[in-house]
Amino acid sequence: MPKITRDQVRVPVDVMPESRDEYIENYMKATQGTGRLMLFACDQKVEHLNKDFYGKGIDIADADPQHLFEIGKQGVVGVLAGQRGLIAQYAADYPEINYLVKMNSKTNLVDTDQEDPYSPQLYDLEAVLAMREAGVNIVGLGYTIYLGSEYEATMMAEAGNLIAQAHANGLLVVLWIYPRGTAVKKEKDPDLIAGAAGVALCLGADFVKVNPPKPEGDDARTPFEALKIASMAAGRTGLVCAGGSTVDAHTFLDQLYNQIHVGGACGNATGRNIHQRSLDEAVRLTKAISAITLADYDVDHAMKVFNGEEDFTLAMI
Amino acid sequence: MPKITRDQVRVPVDVMPESRDEYIENYMKATQGTGRLMLFACDQKVEHLNKDFYGKGIDIADADPQHLFEIGKQGVVGVLAGQRGLIAQYAADYPEINYLVKMNSKTNLVDTDQEDPYSPQLYDLEAVLAMREAGVNIVGLGYTIYLGSEYEATMMAEAGNLIAQAHANGLLVVLWIYPRGTAVKKEKDPDLIAGAAGVALCLGADFVKVNPPKPEGDDARTPFEALKIASMAAGRTGLVCAGGSTVDAHTFLDQLYNQIHVGGACGNATGRNIHQRSLDEAVRLTKAISAITLADYDVDHAMKVFNGEEDFTLAMI
Amino acid sequence: MPKITRDQVRVPVDVMPESRDEYIENYMKATQGTGRLMLFACDQKVEHLNKDFYGKGIDIADADPQHLFEIGKQGVVGVLAGQRGLIAQYAADYPEINYLVKMNSKTNLVDTDQEDPYSPQLYDLEAVLAMREAGVNIVGLGYTIYLGSEYEATMMAEAGNLIAQAHANGLLVVLWIYPRGTAVKKEKDPDLIAGAAGVALCLGADFVKVNPPKPEGDDARTPFEALKIASMAAGRTGLVCAGGSTVDAHTFLDQLYNQIHVGGACGNATGRNIHQRSLDEAVRLTKAISAITLADYDVDHAMKVFNGEEDFTLAMI
Amino acid sequence: MPKITRDQVRVPVDVMPESRDEYIENYMKATQGTGRLMLFACDQKVEHLNKDFYGKGIDIADADPQHLFEIGKQGVVGVLAGQRGLIAQYAADYPEINYLVKMNSKTNLVDTDQEDPYSPQLYDLEAVLAMREAGVNIVGLGYTIYLGSEYEATMMAEAGNLIAQAHANGLLVVLWIYPRGTAVKKEKDPDLIAGAAGVALCLGADFVKVNPPKPEGDDARTPFEALKIASMAAGRTGLVCAGGSTVDAHTFLDQLYNQIHVGGACGNATGRNIHQRSLDEAVRLTKAISAITLADYDVDHAMKVFNGEEDFTLAMI
Amino acid sequence: MPKITRDQVRVPVDVMPESRDEYIENYMKATQGTGRLMLFACDQKVEHLNKDFYGKGIDIADADPQHLFEIGKQGVVGVLAGQRGLIAQYAADYPEINYLVKMNSKTNLVDTDQEDPYSPQLYDLEAVLAMREAGVNIVGLGYTIYLGSEYEATMMAEAGNLIAQAHANGLLVVLWIYPRGTAVKKEKDPDLIAGAAGVALCLGADFVKVNPPKPEGDDARTPFEALKIASMAAGRTGLVCAGGSTVDAHTFLDQLYNQIHVGGACGNATGRNIHQRSLDEAVRLTKAISAITLADYDVDHAMKVFNGEEDFTLAMI
Repeated sequence: MPKITRDQVRVPVDVMPESRDEYIENYMKATQGTGRLMLFACDQKVEHLNKDFYGKGIDIADADPQHLFEIGKQGVVGVLAGQRGLIAQYAADYPEINYLVKMNSKTNLVDTDQEDPYSPQLYDLEAVLAMREAGVNIVGLGYTIYLGSEYEATMMAEAGNLIAQAHANGLLVVLWIYPRGTAVKKEKDPDLIAGAAGVALCLGADFVKVNPPKPEGDDARTPFEALKIASMAAGRTGLVCAGGSTVDAHTFLDQLYNQIHVGGACGNATGRNIHQRSLDEAVRLTKAISAITLADYDVDHAMKVFNGEEDFTLAMI
Repeated sequence: MPKITRDQVRVPVDVMPESRDEYIENYMKATQGTGRLMLFACDQKVEHLNKDFYGKGIDIADADPQHLFEIGKQGVVGVLAGQRGLIAQYAADYPEINYLVKMNSKTNLVDTDQEDPYSPQLYDLEAVLAMREAGVNIVGLGYTIYLGSEYEATMMAEAGNLIAQAHANGLLVVLWIYPRGTAVKKEKDPDLIAGAAGVALCLGADFVKVNPPKPEGDDARTPFEALKIASMAAGRTGLVCAGGSTVDAHTFLDQLYNQIHVGGACGNATGRNIHQRSLDEAVRLTKAISAITLADYDVDHAMKVFNGEEDFTLAMI
Repeated sequence: MPKITRDQVRVPVDVMPESRDEYIENYMKATQGTGRLMLFACDQKVEHLNKDFYGKGIDIADADPQHLFEIGKQGVVGVLAGQRGLIAQYAADYPEINYLVKMNSKTNLVDTDQEDPYSPQLYDLEAVLAMREAGVNIVGLGYTIYLGSEYEATMMAEAGNLIAQAHANGLLVVLWIYPRGTAVKKEKDPDLIAGAAGVALCLGADFVKVNPPKPEGDDARTPFEALKIASMAAGRTGLVCAGGSTVDAHTFLDQLYNQIHVGGACGNATGRNIHQRSLDEAVRLTKAISAITLADYDVDHAMKVFNGEEDFTLAMI
Repeated sequence: MPKITRDQVRVPVDVMPESRDEYIENYMKATQGTGRLMLFACDQKVEHLNKDFYGKGIDIADADPQHLFEIGKQGVVGVLAGQRGLIAQYAADYPEINYLVKMNSKTNLVDTDQEDPYSPQLYDLEAVLAMREAGVNIVGLGYTIYLGSEYEATMMAEAGNLIAQAHANGLLVVLWIYPRGTAVKKEKDPDLIAGAAGVALCLGADFVKVNPPKPEGDDARTPFEALKIASMAAGRTGLVCAGGSTVDAHTFLDQLYNQIHVGGACGNATGRNIHQRSLDEAVRLTKAISAITLADYDVDHAMKVFNGEEDFTLAMI
Repeated sequence: MPKITRDQVRVPVDVMPESRDEYIENYMKATQGTGRLMLFACDQKVEHLNKDFYGKGIDIADADPQHLFEIGKQGVVGVLAGQRGLIAQYAADYPEINYLVKMNSKTNLVDTDQEDPYSPQLYDLEAVLAMREAGVNIVGLGYTIYLGSEYEATMMAEAGNLIAQAHANGLLVVLWIYPRGTAVKKEKDPDLIAGAAGVALCLGADFVKVNPPKPEGDDARTPFEALKIASMAAGRTGLVCAGGSTVDAHTFLDQLYNQIHVGGACGNATGRNIHQRSLDEAVRLTKAISAITLADYDVDHAMKVFNGEEDFTLAMI
């Protein structure tokens, strides 16, 4: 079991002394006292517009944004990541959820062929700090960088400043880093994914969300072996993999297990795979995922949780 | 009748505690105590220059901008939306109107073929807050985002910051969101309109103004059924439809009724359909619209109001 | 005679209470107590470089910039409009002139074929306020917007902010609005000029300087009739016409008379027509212009002033 | 002899009252009590990289940047103009020199065919004021504008703000204005040079450095006659000419004499012609130049100074 | 032995009096009391992504970022240069290392053919000062300028401001200056390298890192002779050469010796040559390098250190 104590939290030196306790508190909350991150990604209403929430193969429950918060409340998650405004509209009714405010977002309307991607910071950190001050349970920030985009510079600078300020104020930061743009031929090239992980470390992120690497051609490594190099490159920044589009639960959980135990990943970041299901099924999946991420269950054991044969609660970590 | 009480107002958590009462007050004013929005759009003097105010089929009264304020005073509206300067020049003589300051605007001279649309924020929020401080009855802000424009990022960021600051200061925010730009092939595609609604929620808007969706091809839904999905996607952000160019009153009111009662819309946003008429007719139309939006009249009943057979006043809500 | 009293000045609500007296004072100064504006445009040394000041048909006196200030001193003008630096270098010797600080300017070197026009704000308002604080007789600001330029957004935003801040500090604002850019086929199209006037109102300007509209094709209106629609569109923003290149005095004065009495203009904005003449002739022309603008003289009467047969002084308003 | 007294210094009204004495002091220092400017230009290490300092025809002494400061110390100059950092590294050892901090600079690597020139402001004024506060003998600022560049707007705005702030703080400003860019066919066209001079005045500069005009075709004027019109256009802004590449001393001094006595120039701005010589020769040339600029020597007399037959010191002004 | 005392440190005049002691302290630390700089470059995880840290010919130890800090701790280095975030994550465990915070960085994904290089400032200086205030041993800043890039202006301005602020606060600044971009045909042209050195001086840097010049064609000078001119052009800014890709130790040390003793270099800046080796070998190489840079060892003597036949410690300087 990956349990840690408060004094095992490795606090970066840019966390100002007066915010040290708050950082540790947030770290313990976000990782549910394990050092591992179970991130429930709820930022796709901007990123993918309504296509991730309504349509064939998606439970109708997902059409109402409140679905996300019900999952966050009834399921077992480390943090629920969403845009500031989304959180602002629901958090009063869901005060127990650990929120990670996604600081930037873009739609998918302009594609890379038309223009390299840039995802703008949508609000100042001050606005987020004010919400925290007013009692909202915000434990950290998220920010996406499209590495290799012609706008890489702007995103790197926004992220670099945000991390400095977030740490100074005791908040965690998770970077989403995706190589993308005219210059990027293979977005999942293992060297590139490892490079992205290293960039996150250099910017000082606490966690980095990357796509799983995809070895090709001469590269005989499994994806999980390749992931291990990226995890090493991330150093003290915990690496988690994006969940991608919805697959069956066993496949999903098996991948996650290998990402952690072979690839050195430090958790998961999952969105569609969870919220496109009915509330009940989605809740059970968060529990199965958390059983692997936060309590080192094996896949079969986690499947029992998913199938509702066993429950998994925070108290069991 | 869609009446609400002050404690039924759902206050977002980014409204700072000291501004909570002001937000509720503004929400009750803007919705005339109903939770529904009757928005009188008076921002076209920039958006469409003088073509909406003078020419064939437009009452000559509309050539003088004071016409807008007379309608706002004599009619029944929730908020009059206009640029800061326009309001500044007339509000002293029309202190009773609820003003919504439109924070950005662009002309229609440069079309999308030449350059993707960008509508710049025209003044700092501080200037608007100072006017409110000086006694002007400002209840909220408006901002337009052209989703899918190459300048989407700038508008998303301006809107994102404005909403945070507006809420912190107790003001409402209405977003106008129109998908437009090289990347947007069908501006009224139902999925896209629903996406726009979700973006408004993620940014934390109180209301979003969209164009009515237009199902095409295989999509057998009525526009109002399609609108319902968008209303769901908007979650706690109230959705209202743009009124578009002038049509006959019955058609207009019938559409509005269906938008609300089938499409789940939370009111209306109407400009040209109102102000291009003579003062008397325009005033009667605001009353007929409000009868539907704010008092759940049916269309025949509202037509009686439009035809002057019955009056409709705020006292009747 | 268009005389007004201090309490007839319509003060916009964005003039902060503590600046109300100053605004009224500046309005009375700039309009010489009439509500009409006689603006002496001296900003062409940037806009047109030295071609307006030296060469064939231009009196040699105009080669020395002090000429402008001598005209301002000896003639009858409402405000002398020039860049901040120009005013800073001469105002100590010409303290009685009412100055309008032109906040932006560009040269004519890069033409519209090469790039759409952008005229940048050249200094912060703080610098202008400091000069006023130090005793310089500054009554207002000027700013040029090229409507329809690809840089329209930047100029609209700079103007929008300047007006808010200027009013808050008791200063008047005159906008110069010229439709220009790749998207603008007919810069003097009457609808477009009326649109420009409406934009000035929406931004909250006190006066707007436009080119006289030029009806073409099917449009059988005189320029002055067309101007009347623009004046209406401007609402409470006073409209004045640019003077254009130098013509004979009678033609000039006749046009001005019709602009005011048929077209609803609220004064004049004249540069080259004045300063390209010898000091004596230029002084007499300012008096003839002011006789029409500020004292409702007819053209023949004003010509007597221009010809030196009669004097016209401020005391005669 | 062009001597002036402190109360003959014409102080612009944007010099704040509390900085008036400092401005006068700086003006007297920079002009050595004459109202004329002898500017030693030492900013080419960025503008021309090392080609102006090392190579054929250049004394090896010039390879070491300290050479510039030795000339400044041993010679007779009004101000030594260089970038902030250059001054910061040497001023402790050369405290007696009057420094003019060049606020912007660019290299010559990207030529106009590739991109129109933009020379960025390299540091905030605050940094310069702090150095002055710490005791460095800074009397003014310099800034280069490429008029007609597509980046003209940015440079105009940076210069406009700098002048306002510099004057407010008692510093002089010298503008370098060079018409350059795709739109500029003849950089030394007399009308254009005169236009540049007028722009400097409108921005409020104390001095402007331009290239000597070059009349062509039908224009039968001598360069110095053409320069006279530019000097007039500059009004109360003193005009000085750039020295250009190295020529023999007599030619150089003869040109300077005519620039002042025919062309109305108010001094000189000389770089390469001075520092590419050995220390001894460079020192003598500064003295010969100053003899003309600051003491109205004729050319023959100045040549005696250059040849070492006579000395010229500040005490002789 | 190049030892200096505290009062031999030449403090630039932009170091504010209250920061003078701190600057001297930092200068003595960074140069280990010698005036020479041994810089261990650890910023490549962004610049070169993971390719410099994992792959053929690279010791596997280099895959874990902690390797860099172990070398910094066990070896002999002047400063360890890395991004703010990297330092923030490890400095608590490596408090004795002198840190130089690299303020900007870019990846190598977008190449110069696609777009001229721009490396953005990734965080405000305030964040770095706060870390120092909290006890992190930060002695200076680094910043990269791509001279000749179309983005040269932005980098020059960021660097110019950083140096002013860093000095004011007692920090050293090292500039990395690489001519690169469409306009640059030969990145290692001796004149260009000398020009780069001069630019660093004009911006006020304490040290400049350049690539070694490469004389070609008619230029019969050795690289070290050519370097001498660059060192002269740098004036009081100390020049160090980039180490480049990994070569055998003798070659490397021989080059370094000549850079210092023939080329006038003021130290070294070495990254890959050090960290791509095993910890033990890397540590020995830092000692051999430092023996040359900080203690004027000859190459044979330094090779003994590299080979482990002799130790070299700070105490031996």
